[in-house]
Amino acid sequence: MSPDHLTTTFAALADPTRRAILARLVSGESSVTRLAEPFEMSLPAISKHLKVLERAGLIARGREAQWRPCRLEAGPLKEASDWIEHYRRFWEQSFDRLEDYLREMQKGVQKKEKKDGSKKQRRH
Amino acid sequence: MSPDHLTTTFAALADPTRRAILARLVSGESSVTRLAEPFEMSLPAISKHLKVLERAGLIARGREAQWRPCRLEAGPLKEASDWIEHYRRFWEQSFDRLEDYLREMQKGVQKKEKKDGSKKQRRH
Repeated sequence: MSPDHLTTTFAALADPTRRAILARLVSGESSVTRLAEPFEMSLPAISKHLKVLERAGLIARGREAQWRPCRLEAGPLKEASDWIEHYRRFWEQSFDRLEDYLREMQKGVQKKEKKDGSKKQRRH
Repeated sequence: MSPDHLTTTFAALADPTRRAILARLVSGESSVTRLAEPFEMSLPAISKHLKVLERAGLIARGREAQWRPCRLEAGPLKEASDWIEHYRRFWEQSFDRLEDYLREMQKGVQKKEKKDGSKKQRRH
């Protein structure tokens, strides 16, 4: 896969409206008019977003002249996912480190509570 | 997570140099000069890319005045991965469909070969 392909995919995903369009297509293909409904945006503005998604291969459009339904194409998302996957051990490590830190902190608190408790007992 | 956070992450990833910088940081933290080595780019150009990555939270930089090493921060990649993960069933379905198609095609070929074979036998 060429790096430019990944660039096009990530650039297409770097917009909340385009991500929302993909999310709407999860439930099946849709006309542009129906896709545009939830957005406070003109049809030409939505069409522009659809063109970016289409160029990135993230959607495909039917060939019917009157009604060119859009549908999700997940291939580029798989490629993006494969790329990100290489970094999984890094975020898993960070969560492990956070977990270790929280565990140590909790131990510290318990130790302090125990100490304070025995101090109180000594005072009584 | 705010949609803008995801937008910043994907926009930062939508560049081959920035992705290559992240890939270099997999082997550990690095100075800007060392990071810049494989790229045919000026240090200021690399610094600009590093700023984009830093703003997206994909790298962090040390506080040493002389040597501010960059290191990978994978948190935003986890969030991007979680978002893409929602679409997994779509690409898995497409691969299943491709597999079905290839299996059907192979069956068709085998059937044709058998038919051609029996025709030949009849001719002999």
